Parts: sequence; C-alpha cells; structure tokens
Amino acid sequence: MRDDATPRADALAKATGQERYSADETPPGCLWAGVRRAGIPHGLITALDVAAARDTPGVAAVLTRADVPGTNRQGIVHKDQPVLCGQRVRHCGDAVALVVAESRAALAEGLSRIAVDFSPLPGVFDPVAALLPDAPLVHPGREDGNRLAHGLVEKGDAPAALAGASADDVVVFDEFHTPLQDHVFLEPPNGLARLTPAGLLDMVVSTQAPFRDRFEIAHALGLDPMKIRIRAPYLGGGFGGKDGATVQCLLALAALHAPGRWVKMAWSREETFLAGYKRHAATVRLRLLAGRDGTLRALSGVLNFDAGPYAHLSGEIMALGMEHAGGPYRIPHTRIEGFCAYTNNPVGGAFRGFGVVQAGFATERLMDALAVKLGRDPAGLRRQNALCPGERNCAGVTVEAGTDTAACLDAVMAHPFWTGREAWKKAAPAFTRRGTGLVAIQNAMGYGRGLPDAAAAKLELTRQGTFRIHNSVPDMGQGNASAFVAMAARALGQPAHAVTCVQPDTRTCPPAGSSSASRTTYTFGNALLRACRAMREKLLARAALALLCDAPERLELLPGAVSDPATGRAVPLARIGLMLCRDDRICIDQFVMPVVDNPPDTGREFKLGFPHRFYSYGACLCAVEADTLTGTVRLARCLVSVACGRVFSLAGVEQQLQGAAAQGAGLALFEDTVLDRGRMRAKDLGTYLIPTALDLPDTRCLALDDDEPTGPMGLKGMGEVGIHGPGPAVAQALYDATGIWLRRLPVTPQAVLEAMGGLPS
Amino acid sequence: MRDDATPRADALAKATGQERYSADETPPGCLWAGVRRAGIPHGLITALDVAAARDTPGVAAVLTRADVPGTNRQGIVHKDQPVLCGQRVRHCGDAVALVVAESRAALAEGLSRIAVDFSPLPGVFDPVAALLPDAPLVHPGREDGNRLAHGLVEKGDAPAALAGASADDVVVFDEFHTPLQDHVFLEPPNGLARLTPAGLLDMVVSTQAPFRDRFEIAHALGLDPMKIRIRAPYLGGGFGGKDGATVQCLLALAALHAPGRWVKMAWSREETFLAGYKRHAATVRLRLLAGRDGTLRALSGVLNFDAGPYAHLSGEIMALGMEHAGGPYRIPHTRIEGFCAYTNNPVGGAFRGFGVVQAGFATERLMDALAVKLGRDPAGLRRQNALCPGERNCAGVTVEAGTDTAACLDAVMAHPFWTGREAWKKAAPAFTRRGTGLVAIQNAMGYGRGLPDAAAAKLELTRQGTFRIHNSVPDMGQGNASAFVAMAARALGQPAHAVTCVQPDTRTCPPAGSSSASRTTYTFGNALLRACRAMREKLLARAALALLCDAPERLELLPGAVSDPATGRAVPLARIGLMLCRDDRICIDQFVMPVVDNPPDTGREFKLGFPHRFYSYGACLCAVEADTLTGTVRLARCLVSVACGRVFSLAGVEQQLQGAAAQGAGLALFEDTVLDRGRMRAKDLGTYLIPTALDLPDTRCLALDDDEPTGPMGLKGMGEVGIHGPGPAVAQALYDATGIWLRRLPVTPQAVLEAMGGLPS
Repeated sequence: MRDDATPRADALAKATGQERYSADETPPGCLWAGVRRAGIPHGLITALDVAAARDTPGVAAVLTRADVPGTNRQGIVHKDQPVLCGQRVRHCGDAVALVVAESRAALAEGLSRIAVDFSPLPGVFDPVAALLPDAPLVHPGREDGNRLAHGLVEKGDAPAALAGASADDVVVFDEFHTPLQDHVFLEPPNGLARLTPAGLLDMVVSTQAPFRDRFEIAHALGLDPMKIRIRAPYLGGGFGGKDGATVQCLLALAALHAPGRWVKMAWSREETFLAGYKRHAATVRLRLLAGRDGTLRALSGVLNFDAGPYAHLSGEIMALGMEHAGGPYRIPHTRIEGFCAYTNNPVGGAFRGFGVVQAGFATERLMDALAVKLGRDPAGLRRQNALCPGERNCAGVTVEAGTDTAACLDAVMAHPFWTGREAWKKAAPAFTRRGTGLVAIQNAMGYGRGLPDAAAAKLELTRQGTFRIHNSVPDMGQGNASAFVAMAARALGQPAHAVTCVQPDTRTCPPAGSSSASRTTYTFGNALLRACRAMREKLLARAALALLCDAPERLELLPGAVSDPATGRAVPLARIGLMLCRDDRICIDQFVMPVVDNPPDTGREFKLGFPHRFYSYGACLCAVEADTLTGTVRLARCLVSVACGRVFSLAGVEQQLQGAAAQGAGLALFEDTVLDRGRMRAKDLGTYLIPTALDLPDTRCLALDDDEPTGPMGLKGMGEVGIHGPGPAVAQALYDATGIWLRRLPVTPQAVLEAMGGLPS
Repeated sequence: MRDDATPRADALAKATGQERYSADETPPGCLWAGVRRAGIPHGLITALDVAAARDTPGVAAVLTRADVPGTNRQGIVHKDQPVLCGQRVRHCGDAVALVVAESRAALAEGLSRIAVDFSPLPGVFDPVAALLPDAPLVHPGREDGNRLAHGLVEKGDAPAALAGASADDVVVFDEFHTPLQDHVFLEPPNGLARLTPAGLLDMVVSTQAPFRDRFEIAHALGLDPMKIRIRAPYLGGGFGGKDGATVQCLLALAALHAPGRWVKMAWSREETFLAGYKRHAATVRLRLLAGRDGTLRALSGVLNFDAGPYAHLSGEIMALGMEHAGGPYRIPHTRIEGFCAYTNNPVGGAFRGFGVVQAGFATERLMDALAVKLGRDPAGLRRQNALCPGERNCAGVTVEAGTDTAACLDAVMAHPFWTGREAWKKAAPAFTRRGTGLVAIQNAMGYGRGLPDAAAAKLELTRQGTFRIHNSVPDMGQGNASAFVAMAARALGQPAHAVTCVQPDTRTCPPAGSSSASRTTYTFGNALLRACRAMREKLLARAALALLCDAPERLELLPGAVSDPATGRAVPLARIGLMLCRDDRICIDQFVMPVVDNPPDTGREFKLGFPHRFYSYGACLCAVEADTLTGTVRLARCLVSVACGRVFSLAGVEQQLQGAAAQGAGLALFEDTVLDRGRMRAKDLGTYLIPTALDLPDTRCLALDDDEPTGPMGLKGMGEVGIHGPGPAVAQALYDATGIWLRRLPVTPQAVLEAMGGLPS
C-alpha cells in the first residue's frame, strides 16, 4: 500500500518558487491595511486621535471601534476578542486602530500619526497568580473573574488510592513548566479582501480554516456569511497559528470601507511576535503512585494554562492536555484537574501539540522521576506500564486496536542509537558529557466528541479526461494536497500526473473543518476516497453507454481509459470527459470521523472536543551533548518511531516527524520564550532563534506496521505526535549526561553549567 | 407503500393548458422548415428542380441531398435511412427536399414550387413476398436482398417433439395477421433548432431519446455530438413513434443553413401518417402441440415482420416478438424463427408493445384453437399451462419470482364480468350477440441484454430548501415525471409540493436511455432513489455542521428541516440550501438494469436486446356486442389485471392500463390500417378513426400484490403490457358471441356480418 515512488506533487512548484501563496498576490493598485497596536499589556484608552492620520496623504481610511458594524467580537468558541479595541486594551498586541492607505509608505506614515493616550492598569502575567482573589481582572465584571476554564477528568478514585498508599509503594510528585512558543511559520499572516459591486466580500487569506472564517467575519462585522468568499492558497506554515482570526476581520473591515478595491494586509515578523497567537505557557503539578515493582497505581494532578487575554481555543487545549496527562500508560486511578486563566500575556492559541506538549512533558518527566526512585531503567518502566488495546486511558476511554506503545519503544530500543548508547557516551570528546533519553509519545487525532469532524470532497473529471481534486482543507506545508493527489491516483488507478489539486475556495468547494488536529489527511482523505468510489462507479456506468456494455461492473478503469475485458474495447477518459455535462463530471462525497461510542461520565465541563477516539503513538530517543565549558546542550541524535495506521507515504511521515521534532527541539533548546511584562523579550528572528538544519541531527524515523480500519487506506493523522518527544527526551538525556533534573523548558546554559560544576550564572 | 393520495404533479398544469410542449414554442421571428415528400412508393428521381422554390419570396433556403454535410444516414442501429433522398425513393414519405422560409405561407409556396420527376420502379408491399428471389429490391446491391433480419430462438427440440406426436396428442396450426398501426399521438412530430454564434446546435424537440438524438444528428450531418443540445419538454404522446429520427436531422440541417436563427418544423397529421414510423404489420404462423390433457408440449413458428424501407429497430422488434411468442406458458420445446423484410410500405418502427402485440395475438389465438379442439375452457387451459417462477420461458430464460399468470387469470375470473358472463350474454338486446374472452398478457421491461439499460439522475437542493429533479427521460404523457416527484418526496420525507421536476436537457442532465421499453420509471427511478439516498446523507452531514452534531446518522430528515432528536434542535433545509455552494447542492447517481446472468445459447443473431430478464404479467377480459344488422362490434366490457411489482401509484397504473387497452382496442376494432400501394388509405383523423372515450367502456383494473426486489420502491415497468389484451380477447369474445374465427386484425363488420349469417360483403 505504500506509495514511496510518487514524488510529492507540489515539490517542483515549491522548489522552484512557482507556487503562489497569498502573500505573493498583490493586485495592481491595491490598498494596504495596517494596525496600530496597543503596545502596553493592560490599560484604558483615554484619548485616541486619528485626525492627523486621516489627513495623511495617501491614507484612504482610518477606522476605530466605532467603525465596526457588527459585534466586534471574534473567537472560535468564546467570542471575546475585539477586532478593534474599545476603551480597554488587554495585551500589547491589541488592535487599536486600522489604517488603509494607497501605499505601504503612506500606511506607515498614517499609522505613525495616530495618537493614543493610555491610563495603564496593573497587569497579571502568571496563570496561577491570575486565579488569586486579588489579581487584576482582565475582563472586569466577568462572573468567573480570570478563570476562563476549569475541568476535571477522573477515572476510579485517585485520591483514595494515593491516601491508601502503603510504605512499600512509591509516590513521586513534581511541578513542571513549559513556556509559550511562537509558531514561526515562514509566511506571516496576510491576505487580501475586496467588496465586489455585487456585495460579495472576496478574500484570499493565509488561513487554516476558510469555511469557519466566513462565520467569524460575519459575526464580528454583522455580515451574511454566505456573502463572504474565502480562498486559501498554500500556506507557508500554520502549525495552529492560522487557525483563528489573524488578518481576517481587520481585512474585511478595511474592504468594507473601500468598496470595489483590493485591500492587502501583511503582518511583519515583529507584528506576528507581538499580536499572533502563541502556544500556552503552562504549569503542571503531578503526583504519581506506583507499586515497588513499578506498576502504576494512581495519578493526580493539576494543569494551569496561561490563556492570555482572549479565549481562542484555550479551554479545548486545556482539555486535550488533561486527556493526555496520563500518557500512553495503564493507570487504574486518575484525577486530572485543569485551570485556564486570563492574563495580560500574548494570546494563547492552537499550536501543534495542542496542550499535549505541556502535559506530556510533565508526565514523561514524572515517569523518569519514578524510574530514578525505583532504580529502574526509564524505558523498561514505560514498557511495563504501556497501555494496551481494550484498556482505558486516563480519561476512561477504552483505547482502540493499534495502541502499541510497547512496540514503539521496542523499535527504538532495537536501534543502534539505543543499543550502542553506552559506547557512544564513553566516546564523548573533551569538555563534553553525553546522555540518552527515551520517552513515549501520543497524540489524539481530530476534534473529538461534541462537534462533527467532517469534510466533504469534490472530485472533478476534466474535459481532458484527467482528475481535479477540489481541496477543502488548506495545505499549510504538511503535504496533504500531495497526499490527496497520490490517494486519488491510486484509488482511480491513474498516474499521479493525471490528478491535480486546487486549493480551498469556499465558493466552489464543499465544506470541511479546519486544517488542524492531525485530521486533514484522515477526514478529507476518507471523503475523497468516497468521492473516488463514486467517480469510478460513474465512469464505468458512463463508459458502458459508449461500450454498449450491459454490466458496468465488468468494466475496468485503466489509466486514461475504461476497458471492457469481454470485448477488448476501451473508451478514453478524455472522451467521457467530453461526453458528460458539467455537473456530471463532478462527484462530491463526505465523511465524518467516528467518535467514542460510550463516553465516560467525566469531563462534563467540556461541551466540545472531549474525549477523543483515535490516537497515534510513538517513542522518541534524543541523545545530547552538554558542553562543560559553555553549558550549551546540543541535540546530537534524534530517533522517532511512530504507529499511525498504515504508512501511505513514508517520505510524508518522515517529513512530519522531522519537522515536529525540530519544533519540539526548538522549544527545548533554542527559543527565547522569556516574557517581559506581557511581551516577548525576543522581538524578531535575530533574537528568537529557531533551530536550522545545521543545528539539528538528521532525525531518524521508524514507521511501524499498523492499520487503522476506519482510515483512508488505513492511515491515521500524525502531524503532531512527533513534537512531544524532544522536550522530555532531552530532559532525560540531560539527566543521563549531567545529573541535572530539568523541571522547566527551555534548557538554559546557566542551569546546565551549574549542574556540571561549572560557573554558576 | 402505495401513494394514492398524492395528486399527479403535472395534472393542474396540463388540465389548464399551462404546460408547455415543444409545439407551443414559436420564438418571435423564427423560420419555418418543411419537407417535400416523394409521394410514390418506389422510384428514381430523374429531375429535381428547386430553382423556382429558391426564388419564392420569403424562402430562405431550399436544400437537397447535396447540401447534407455528413453521412446523410440515420437509424438507431442500422443507419440506412437518408435525411434527404439521393436518387432513389423507397416509400411515399421519403424526404426529397427541405425548404426553409420566413413564414408558413412562404414555406407552403416554396414546397409547392419544387419540381420532381420520378422514374417509378416496381414496389414490394408484402413482407413474405419480399423475401422471394424475384422480388423488387428496396436496397439494390445489398447482400441479403430484402431480408433485413433473421433470427432463431430455440429451446429443446420442437421439430422432434412435433414429429413424434402420438395419435393421442393434439396439434393446432394457424396463420395470423396484424396490421400496421399509427401512434396517433396528440402532438405530431415537431421541434426547433438554432445554431448559436458559439457553434452550438440548440434544439427543442418532441422526442423520446434526447441523449441519443445528438449522436443521430451528428452522424447524419457530420457534426460533433457534444455541440448539440437537445431539450425535450413534455411530449404530447410518443408511444415509440418519437423514439428515433422524425424532425431532428431535417431541423438541424435547416438550422445549419440559417445560423443564429431559430427554425421550427411541425409536421401535420397528414405528414405524420405519410412519413412517421408505424407498428410493423406481421404475419405469424404457429404450430402448437399439446397432450390430450391440455399440457403444452411444443411450439414451432415463423414470424414475418414488414420493416418498410428502413431498419429503424425492426430487428429488435422482431426479436422481442420471438421472445414472447411462447406466451407466459410452460412449453418444453420451442422453435421460433423470425424474418424481417424491407418493403416499400411505411417505415416500421417502435410502438408500444414492440413486436409483442403481433406475437401475442397469434399465441393467444392458438391457445383458443387448442381449447376448442380439446373442448376446454380457454381460461382453464391457460391457467393449467401458466409459466411459474424458476421455469424457463420460450427463449430458455429462467423467469423471475413474480411471474404469476395464474394469479392474474384468477383475479379476473373472480370478477363479476367473468362469473356473471353467461347471464350477461343471455341479457343481450335484440339484434345483438354477446361474448366474453379472457387472455393472458406479458411484456418484458427494458432493453435486454447487450446494451446498458442505464439512467443517471440529478437531484438538486434549491437555495430555498426545496428539491428539483432533473429528469433525463422524457415524459411523453405516461406520468413518469410525476412518479419521480412522488418517489423523491417519499424518499426524502418531504411533501410533494417541495419537489419539482424539470424536463430533459442534454446540457444540464446526466445521460439516460430513451423513454421506451417500459423502462423509465424503473431505471431512472432507481437512479433517482440512489441520488435521494446520497442527498439525504449529504443533508445530514451538512446539517451536522450547523447542529454541532458528531454523529450525523443520528439526525432526522424531516419536512423542511434536519432535526437532532438528542437536542431537539433543527436546521431548516432553506438554511442548508443557502449554506452550500452550487455544486454541493447537487447529487447525481445512476443505475443500470440487471440483465440475465446466464443467457441461453440461442438467439445469437441478436447482438442487442436479447434476452430480457424482467416481465410484467396480466390478464385481460373483453366482452363484446356484435350488431347482427351492421356487423359492428362494440367493446362492452374491459377488465385488466396486472402483476408489475409493487404498485406505487394505483392511478398511474390504471391510467397506463386504460390507455394501453384503448390503443389495443383501436387496433382490434377501429383503425383503418389498409394500405394502398405502400400508402395508408386513411390519410387523416377523419378517416383513421381511433376510439374516443365514448367508444369504449371504462376499463377496470386489478393490480395484484407483487414486489420486484430490484425495482424502485419495488415496482416494475408496465406501460406496454396492457396493450396486448384487447386484440386476442376481442377475437375470443367474438368467437364466443358469433363463432367467427378471427385470424386477422382489425375486425371488419363485413366478416362479422357474414359469420352471423347476415349480408355478405
């Protein structure tokens, strides 16, 4: 079933720069829109003078809160984020005014002439402190104060189990911190909008959710969502950071005030750092009970997420973290509590790993602590407790066939990186200490229960007899469009060059959910394969007319033709393409991801997205070298195994694992995540360093034999699972190398130096 | 399952004259086209002078054979009929020249000024004589001479069985004649054509086969079939007479010579009698062997069909007649031979009953002869030999469940018309003799083996949340469009007024076969129900998005809305209609009629359409009164039972049975079918009398409980079966009344008078 021969369909266009991103589109004579940001984390606007800006030559419009016709509220679930702020600003990136100008220079000049006076307010910058009674309120008057979300996931009776622990049992407890993280996609948020004479708002946006965007814009601006058209070309990265409103409402607002003209908005890297969504910083406290033999008995813990000032998907991210907090382990009693607090930090939002990064780091670290306490090999302890099909995870959901953490660990443990680790450590060069860590990873696929994880796929037979997929789920670089081309080609028995894929357009594509949650290839892929089946049946039936065949099921769909084995006659697909009327050249079919049938009686606070049914699993080995002179830690080796259903494209799986591991390594070792009163200290890519190819080893990948019966060609989504390894694996490796016990990411050279007996910071 | 409450969807529009037929369309400023017909049955054109016609004021073009750009050949299977004759004319209706004019008056004037000189040739007017060696040849140079088609259908060894008959056995033999018949549809052939500036040939035609017409026209005129668009509004009757080329090629040719302008052609009744297709006249000789107890042993026979000068579907009509020649009876040995000959009579073509009328009359008459010879009740003899499921018919095909001639006979025999027949006869008024006849009837459904009996159905959700069926099979009055509305309404759980049906248009509808062969409701209905299932699934999946439902299968499609029983929330279909992009509001699906799996090893001459798998069955009682003074025979009572799968609409079934019985009674008693040297003696409706409502009794109908598992809602086609009863039932009744032994239809008063001892003619 593996398709390793087909080159990625978009490889050439991307390698040669021919592929068009929305950032590449600048219609002649288009206007430019830009935003004046608050620049302070919390305060009241006492004066906003836009007169000078309006009088600036080349400025077409300066818009403030008063110019927003609708609710002015955006947000995927909770609509609490203003398009343009009224009186209160709640983080440095808040939008205060919108300028539309004839040129980028006029835009810059206009933005600079906006005068804002603020009355600063005390801010709250810690998600735990934010819940204290006297914390400054981000949304005054709100019943729950700064508590945006709270949830409890329970199975069995963890408190009783912990209370009843005997002297022979072992309990470990610790608190862990993971920082915010910027997505650092190549292409910052941007888009175009135009209000046509017919009243259609025509938009081209770098977005992960074109179909939802229509409703978001319509709600915020008081428009008819069906009069909004969103096109989503290939994205230069997304990672969750384009799953939600970035430029959409602002751009639409600008277009409403410049009827008939294209308006473009393109955030700079600096604006993206300032105003874009971030991975939630989190504090996780866990307590784990095990028998002396290493058998896990109970887990209890609290997760605190920093939402920033607006909800975005914070509650759902917290819930997914809680659902993963037990790891891929068999634990009879669990009690996971979650809190999500408003702060005046950057807005927390979706990010590859979606709460699981935070929980997984803590769980894996605590497994290491248990191993230390028991004097056990960390890998063996994990293997011993690996969750098996038919058992219940920490949310009480019986996990599916294909859950095989032990096999994932075994695959890595059979690799020379593991078997030869001691020799490798001993061969460490001077001033270097080496260590190896091995952790288990998991990530759920899809939206989970409570809302449909749906996609509809449109497949077109062209008049030339080739096939065109109308993709409804944006390709942000992960390669789903190419996977769809390869899938359809295989399903239809056609060469890959006979299949093309056009990117989402809400006017011509049937609806699908967002490109997120490791769901696109599974959900849209299933819809596409159903459309392929319908197309195949149609082609045979139509060819039967030309071939005078009374039993279409006897016909064979061959490359470029339908043939009748009984007569040897064939009709070219190009002829069928010419024969059929337009509507008859199209097949649309849909798929909705199955959900957990009998959900456990817990997590009732979570209306949407809890619990999940399908998971991909894996294991990750990281080997590090710590420099005893500088404290710098280098990721020397990285190996990831994965069980994610059948492998359709090994190259595709490897690309996702490598990219995810690099992003995980960035969080662990590279990225400057320090906040200074609600603002990232690093303001650009000169200071916010992400790992380059030279900074990382070649990540080795091991894809296990697996099969997901509900999956398209047996596959499951796996775009996120690889990000969970490097954080805890680097921490374990660092302990192996230096004895330093890491509770916080990223790793700082100071802490490492100190642990190795070098210079304290 | 019966739908007797829903009024026929087109009833009001038709009753009030609002419905538009193609004859109703006369675009302002359109040209008129008309044909100069040969007027002689056989001859060579020695001179054709169109100069005066061309010079006629208002004449736009006069076209002859030299102006035809393609093959000039038309014909559904064999392309042997010229659009415009070259040198030879082969029947009186042959088209010699085509005139296009600005007005009907100019057209008439132009036609009258065409001067044609013929050199007459001896004609051949009898299909048996046509096969003799010295017969004049209709197509000189043709290898098979006048023999257009020949076939043999055998099962067992009928010659041996007949040769081996013992003295105790009974053999009956006779020869029967059925005449040609005109369809006498209300709306004579007509249509419109226009060559658009884009090169599209846009046509509106009263046709039973819009999709095939494109290929017919393209072949004859050397055009691209995909650049021809045919729209087929409701037909004012068809009965097979519009299944093939009438105006199509002529009209297209005219339009090619008047680019940009609409051209209209409308045949008069007289032109239709002259040039239109007719039911084939036939001579059938049958020999039937039975045991003394009435058990049928063997049947042997020869069918001779009069094709006229062009093939049309003559071979297929002959084959279907042969396939039915054994009647719905159990006969171990059969040998049926068929011949079809070219003559200079009117062109034989498709007509309701399609060869079965001819064969059935002979078979049923011979059963009567056997009953007389055995001194048996004709009904009981039929019942004794009724074919049962699992047995093989005369073509060797094992008949399906639902074959129950005995039940059809029983239903009629339980009716007072049968049980009270002797009392009724005794109550005959003065100068009147009464008699009752009861025969079995059957008719296959669909094209049969060798070509796909296919249809694709397009179902559209409108933006208003209602449904629109795009019918691909013309409704010629039989009511299929209304049946489709009712079927879709039921399948979708919507009120009938929420479903509309638009008539065929090759540009917007997916393809389907012709409206013929009792196939439309079955084949298109199945395709439509599949499209309805796809639509239902789509609606639930799309509604799930609006209802945030993770399990669309839980949703319910209610009238006008999709509802979630779990939450009580609903989304109106009108909202879904607005939500979906255009292509997503359409579902297309298709169906191909199953064929006989293991066809018997006979009838190999028939490439197309042999044998058939599905039949409808019935029985027909006719009671007649013969006037002893005038010889006039009046059909006093008519009762038809039918087993045709489930009855979806009893009114629809009754309408078909009543119409078919009337058409059968027309052939038996009313229509002047006499030919005079290749031309019908009756030239208009003043002389070709068809029965009116006043001439006929109310035909009573009995629809049996039945079910066809492959049928849409369990039904089978039954538009033809009812025509087979009156011919043989009237003959049997007349024998019962008068002792006259009828071998020929129609019944003539002279023959009746003579038999009753009245005045000989």
